[in-house]
Amino acid sequence: MTEIDLNSDVGEGFGHWSLGDDDALLDLVSSANVACGFHAGDPSVLRRVTERAAERGVAVGAQVGYRDLPGFGRRFIDVDPAELVNDVVYQIAALDGFARIAGTRVSYVKPHGALYNAIVHHAEQAAAVVEAVRRYDPGLPLLGLPGSEALRQAESAGLTAVPEVFADRAYTAEGRLVSRREPGAVLHEVGTVVARSVRMATEGVVEAVDGTLLPVTARSVCVHGDTPGAVEIARRVREGLRDAGVTVRSFAGAA
Amino acid sequence: MTEIDLNSDVGEGFGHWSLGDDDALLDLVSSANVACGFHAGDPSVLRRVTERAAERGVAVGAQVGYRDLPGFGRRFIDVDPAELVNDVVYQIAALDGFARIAGTRVSYVKPHGALYNAIVHHAEQAAAVVEAVRRYDPGLPLLGLPGSEALRQAESAGLTAVPEVFADRAYTAEGRLVSRREPGAVLHEVGTVVARSVRMATEGVVEAVDGTLLPVTARSVCVHGDTPGAVEIARRVREGLRDAGVTVRSFAGAA
Amino acid sequence: MTEIDLNSDVGEGFGHWSLGDDDALLDLVSSANVACGFHAGDPSVLRRVTERAAERGVAVGAQVGYRDLPGFGRRFIDVDPAELVNDVVYQIAALDGFARIAGTRVSYVKPHGALYNAIVHHAEQAAAVVEAVRRYDPGLPLLGLPGSEALRQAESAGLTAVPEVFADRAYTAEGRLVSRREPGAVLHEVGTVVARSVRMATEGVVEAVDGTLLPVTARSVCVHGDTPGAVEIARRVREGLRDAGVTVRSFAGAA
Amino acid sequence: MTEIDLNSDVGEGFGHWSLGDDDALLDLVSSANVACGFHAGDPSVLRRVTERAAERGVAVGAQVGYRDLPGFGRRFIDVDPAELVNDVVYQIAALDGFARIAGTRVSYVKPHGALYNAIVHHAEQAAAVVEAVRRYDPGLPLLGLPGSEALRQAESAGLTAVPEVFADRAYTAEGRLVSRREPGAVLHEVGTVVARSVRMATEGVVEAVDGTLLPVTARSVCVHGDTPGAVEIARRVREGLRDAGVTVRSFAGAA
Repeated sequence: MTEIDLNSDVGEGFGHWSLGDDDALLDLVSSANVACGFHAGDPSVLRRVTERAAERGVAVGAQVGYRDLPGFGRRFIDVDPAELVNDVVYQIAALDGFARIAGTRVSYVKPHGALYNAIVHHAEQAAAVVEAVRRYDPGLPLLGLPGSEALRQAESAGLTAVPEVFADRAYTAEGRLVSRREPGAVLHEVGTVVARSVRMATEGVVEAVDGTLLPVTARSVCVHGDTPGAVEIARRVREGLRDAGVTVRSFAGAA
Repeated sequence: MTEIDLNSDVGEGFGHWSLGDDDALLDLVSSANVACGFHAGDPSVLRRVTERAAERGVAVGAQVGYRDLPGFGRRFIDVDPAELVNDVVYQIAALDGFARIAGTRVSYVKPHGALYNAIVHHAEQAAAVVEAVRRYDPGLPLLGLPGSEALRQAESAGLTAVPEVFADRAYTAEGRLVSRREPGAVLHEVGTVVARSVRMATEGVVEAVDGTLLPVTARSVCVHGDTPGAVEIARRVREGLRDAGVTVRSFAGAA
Repeated sequence: MTEIDLNSDVGEGFGHWSLGDDDALLDLVSSANVACGFHAGDPSVLRRVTERAAERGVAVGAQVGYRDLPGFGRRFIDVDPAELVNDVVYQIAALDGFARIAGTRVSYVKPHGALYNAIVHHAEQAAAVVEAVRRYDPGLPLLGLPGSEALRQAESAGLTAVPEVFADRAYTAEGRLVSRREPGAVLHEVGTVVARSVRMATEGVVEAVDGTLLPVTARSVCVHGDTPGAVEIARRVREGLRDAGVTVRSFAGAA
Repeated sequence: MTEIDLNSDVGEGFGHWSLGDDDALLDLVSSANVACGFHAGDPSVLRRVTERAAERGVAVGAQVGYRDLPGFGRRFIDVDPAELVNDVVYQIAALDGFARIAGTRVSYVKPHGALYNAIVHHAEQAAAVVEAVRRYDPGLPLLGLPGSEALRQAESAGLTAVPEVFADRAYTAEGRLVSRREPGAVLHEVGTVVARSVRMATEGVVEAVDGTLLPVTARSVCVHGDTPGAVEIARRVREGLRDAGVTVRSFAGAA
């Protein structure tokens, strides 16, 4: 039987500010990338989200980011790699405290925003993230972009590297994401997003912008949580997968 | 054989700013109250201090505080108790991550600054701190002021409540600390501080400002780390205790 | 001709997080209390809001608060008054920079949240706020609660003290706001809120919870911006005032 | 008569943390680059430093930086240029508030740390800084590295661009600073630093690492404030300049 993981960012509120519909998303995904307080998320957000994830059997992932609340972690910061190791450990550990209280554990790590993008190619920062995971718990998988420096280094270091695909993003013929600055980078038509998700899960391919069929080895599909209609898209993707006989299950074995 | 714990605040630098001589203090104390990032301390400070504490067999304590870097945690904040629980869990868990990496664990909790003072009498905030410790790990002792609301509630909740005394602070006849706003609140004469420490450890008494001999049940003596001459005072206290046949040992069993 | 000011909080987003519908409110109010970055608001928010306020002839007020992004300025902080003076100056000055760029000036100060509430009775913090305004620009009015320590001290210091009323809050017979912790503290029925606003403006009275008619000397009516339906209430209040022949105009002379 | 400006960073403490000896430096320099709160400096620091600068007739400059307290502004942040404009305006305006209270004004702008370095070549961020200064007050000079993108753009925009030299930094034959990562980048021998300062001021040349004599058009010499012995070096430079008949005077006309 075919199975795949659905992951989404949650817990991205901060204090008086909320973002996205965490509860609705937690009913749909198998893996929750929970912000850890550096780019979003405060301790009470972490508490609530980990409890609700645990109640639903959704795997809790540490969505680690740059220390940049004003920039929501979306700006590259040229952090010293030695310090980045510690910034990442701090975030994983803090979230893990709440996961334990909720009766579960952090079961994977997914970098956020500009850090996610940086470690596609930035070898030193990729090494820092890998080192942080390895030091905190070498059993934690690292979720990231297929072919990225981060996943390559994770594998070299003996970690489990989990590639993900984006149901709503266009791909180049080389298998890279089309930059958000270009038109058509983000797919908004729900039917298309659903069909792509199902095809990724069942056939292991995705159609690039030029029509090329790319093999995708994704073990997880990322659905976004903070765009208008995000929850509806996630729901439709989940239903489409179910109708295609695909089981939505966390790669971390928790859902 | 008589024994007592010596505790001091360490890890209170932040980024480019340093404070106190952590390495020198870690050679002298048996318990290190490590700032966890909310009032002081950044991830790289936590990493370094926990490693050095572990190397020396010094117990690592979570010095949890209000989220207030500009105020160094020294200003009372009327935090919602439900949020305070989570703020404290977050800090303990983050530090514990570094302690684990260093091959040890957080082995007690000591609130810092205005939070320390608030929970002497503020029942709701005291309850929040106790709840945080209990939820994170009910085996963690809470270090605080004898007779405080916090220690009373800790005991009621089944936690280990560890009272501490201050070698360099004047006490009222009722056993309270003389307010820092009053003259003579802080003792600066090293010989006096040493003699009081030894007497506390060996006789279980301290002389109040009016000459009254107060019984002290302290299991730990706090020496300050960030005042001029702090390290020298700590060294002299340590030597004075040794000369009086007192073993300096962590109450947490780690040193 | 009768006239009154309508003020509302705007500019309370931060980075990726937004809050309330600033543009809609700026079409309705005569005075915009703009968050200055300490409890909400970032520089780009300040820039945008001051420009839009200036375009509409809406008076720009400095909504100064405690330095507490995680708590949105809603938690009392026992700040040293000498430091609070400087915290308030910093916020007014920063906002004034954007106001100048937009071709206007900060034309009044209204403390936010817990600071607003504290200086109703906290003499030292009230003095700090008054001192900050006086030092920055003694021509700036201070907007606050009638009968508060802050307004009393503002008048003593030679500042213009502007009392405001709340269209949607219940009052005790003594003229105090009913605590938000009590039922009925906030009025949600739009017709009632409108009628009270009109009566305040035209008759100078408001009905307390026990039916007492209280004289109100308000020069400004506060409408909230961040509650569900806030904009609709503000619109209805504005229309109700217009229909009753009341001109909505800033007390600061800018709208 | 020959004259030159001496500038140094001051006001880089934050809350409980101090850095450098501001008072001693303010007795020696003619221009004080005052941190504005984004990478260092809090409102009370700004207040104190601007008052003391004003008392001594030292020109107050806005030392604007990235919003990065944990990194002390020393890490490049890929801020959106439109947001950077506002970040810089905010900082200048906040400092200017304190300068006004102290009876003076911000009289120039000098970017700090990673922002200083970025705008040597990063055209968009350089444009953002220039735009911020131009919008806030086109009469404010921009102090920076000779030949930098920032100074070129400042001149194009009609601002006064003030080039500075570093008394204690080695230069390449091309007139660039030797990277701090290379040995010999920072000169520690006081006599050498003094002699170079005097030669820059009186002869308009500096000797590069290969012995080449580079023409320097500096109107200001930067002396560092936070290194060991910084104050002593500044004092010796000041004395050396005096002994060589050079008047130390702010380019901004305030000292």
